[in-house]
Amino acid sequence: MIQQILSGITHPTLLLDKQKAFNNIQMMIRKANKYNLAFRPHFKTHQSAKIGNWFRDLGVDEITVSSLNLAKYFVGHGWKKVIVAFPVNARAVEEINELAKRCSLTVFISNKDSLNKLKESLTSQIQFFIEIDTGYNRTGISPENTSFIDELLQIAESSNQLKFRGFYAHNGHTYHASSKAEIEEIHTKTVRIFWKLRKQYSDKYPKLDIQIGDTPSCSLLDHFEGIDAIGPGNFVFYDLTQANIGSCNIDQVAVAMACPVVEKYEDKNQVIIHGGGVHFSKDFIEEEDGTKVFGRVVKMQDNDWSEPIENAYITSLSQEHGIVQIPKELMSEIKVGDLIFVLPVHSCLTANLYQHYFCLDGECIERFSS
Amino acid sequence: MIQQILSGITHPTLLLDKQKAFNNIQMMIRKANKYNLAFRPHFKTHQSAKIGNWFRDLGVDEITVSSLNLAKYFVGHGWKKVIVAFPVNARAVEEINELAKRCSLTVFISNKDSLNKLKESLTSQIQFFIEIDTGYNRTGISPENTSFIDELLQIAESSNQLKFRGFYAHNGHTYHASSKAEIEEIHTKTVRIFWKLRKQYSDKYPKLDIQIGDTPSCSLLDHFEGIDAIGPGNFVFYDLTQANIGSCNIDQVAVAMACPVVEKYEDKNQVIIHGGGVHFSKDFIEEEDGTKVFGRVVKMQDNDWSEPIENAYITSLSQEHGIVQIPKELMSEIKVGDLIFVLPVHSCLTANLYQHYFCLDGECIERFSS
Repeated sequence: MIQQILSGITHPTLLLDKQKAFNNIQMMIRKANKYNLAFRPHFKTHQSAKIGNWFRDLGVDEITVSSLNLAKYFVGHGWKKVIVAFPVNARAVEEINELAKRCSLTVFISNKDSLNKLKESLTSQIQFFIEIDTGYNRTGISPENTSFIDELLQIAESSNQLKFRGFYAHNGHTYHASSKAEIEEIHTKTVRIFWKLRKQYSDKYPKLDIQIGDTPSCSLLDHFEGIDAIGPGNFVFYDLTQANIGSCNIDQVAVAMACPVVEKYEDKNQVIIHGGGVHFSKDFIEEEDGTKVFGRVVKMQDNDWSEPIENAYITSLSQEHGIVQIPKELMSEIKVGDLIFVLPVHSCLTANLYQHYFCLDGECIERFSS
Repeated sequence: MIQQILSGITHPTLLLDKQKAFNNIQMMIRKANKYNLAFRPHFKTHQSAKIGNWFRDLGVDEITVSSLNLAKYFVGHGWKKVIVAFPVNARAVEEINELAKRCSLTVFISNKDSLNKLKESLTSQIQFFIEIDTGYNRTGISPENTSFIDELLQIAESSNQLKFRGFYAHNGHTYHASSKAEIEEIHTKTVRIFWKLRKQYSDKYPKLDIQIGDTPSCSLLDHFEGIDAIGPGNFVFYDLTQANIGSCNIDQVAVAMACPVVEKYEDKNQVIIHGGGVHFSKDFIEEEDGTKVFGRVVKMQDNDWSEPIENAYITSLSQEHGIVQIPKELMSEIKVGDLIFVLPVHSCLTANLYQHYFCLDGECIERFSS
């Protein structure tokens, strides 16, 4: 059945196993419920109104997104509560005002310049999280720097339009962790940081709301003391990076690429696929021996794809070409003109290159196109 | 004037300096004319009908593209002669037949499976290049393997629809060269390979056509004995990679990103921009000391942008964030809410993420959207 549906594919195509994605969503909702956490999933990975509806049907009513454009898209598809999890862009204050008229909007604040610009220019009420840097070292305020947090809160309090909601942190450093213990350590540190901030600020702000969002912590860990909400995104599809970290089993990865084989080199045990940097993006996993892996080959079965075939992986991507290393004993099974199926290294960046998901039952699901 | 045009930018935006691109095009046309080479520019970089017209207005009548979809787009915009410079995809034979009705189509052949499939299924005449591997080691037939070339030609001769045009090579290994001498060496080897193949095949195929295409060789070198045509692509915009190789001067780079500054860290001499992997792509240049550079900061001047500011570059990209290192003494010149301008590492992959070019005179130029 699947083989028949896929037989019409002539170009690199992003496949979605809806059942796997749906299971991932249900799993994370169960987890949030178990630990009494609000679930505000990040929609930056799937960026699809239809997939968003699956969440809504399961009771989700507030979402996290990565840009104002994405916020606009989902508000246009009926979402009423949206968190833009990115340092607020003071140049886009008109767009923020437009959005704030149409939904309950939460933005991120971590500096006075943007805050003052908002204070001057907001025409509707919005909420804000103060972003805390828990060690990822990308954005956010050091949790020690409470005098600066106080300054920001003071500025905000003199505005009718700016309502302090709480603190947010993205533990992006868990993506570079090599063990569950390391993720545990990062997460525990974060929990302690927020415990301390809550103690300091909850008298004045009794409804203080604390959200975290990285997929590894949300997938693997089971203590969220002092955290109010989680907003992971990548878990909806997962990918090789997450499987490598240990955030998921490989059979939870819900997207795969289908790529035509256009050339075959018996002497090198290689096939060339139509599938390059413009189809996969260029993220890679570096193995211990220095080998770069840009995707791993799976086999299409009756109902879904297999686990990755050992030693079958993309070694190199140019704009349109992918070079795929194949174990010698499997070379005879692959012909020029076949499709080859590949799990992506980073599903967020791969999915970003498509306007559609092609599902294993033949359904075509649209996604946001910037 | 430029500052006023750019003042409305609120999101990561791909800027095009039309004059620079136009100069690059004229330069390459002059070069082709000087060495009596047919000029069949590769349109994979700009992917824009409008920019294509600039080439047409300068006399170009045949183009090279990287995919059937791109071929369709340009045929739809009036191009009558198109070379698809990618191993022919036997799964897409219906699309090839459709295209062949609408234009003079040339494809690449390097294996019997695809050739036989075409032979069975073609309904219109097409031409083909045999792709030769001159040392890049990605696709193509070894030039030594003339018995295999003969087999392919024999299969093709038994078809009315398949017309052998000649040989093609992409010297992609020049992109990894570190000096002009190294590019010269690769190119000279290629010229010799084709000289030998021409000698062997020109009796039987007196109109034998030999095309090469890499931007470094076409930009830097001045001997093309035995080559009939060039089809470079990247030169229309160039980028940091090409400037690094020495294919162009840095002031020939015709595209830059404009990104809002959303955060500033005095202690780290860093600013955070809205501009991540979904805006730049993830290609990087690795410096000798191991530093990864994902883009270099330039300054906007009255009429164009400056050369890169020393030690001002993107050190890291996540999905939407870019971390930019700024020399300490320049930190005071940059404010949250400013735009920062960045030359991309690989213009083909960066441009692929946009549907428009925003020109320095305010014009908005559309490009192909897959």
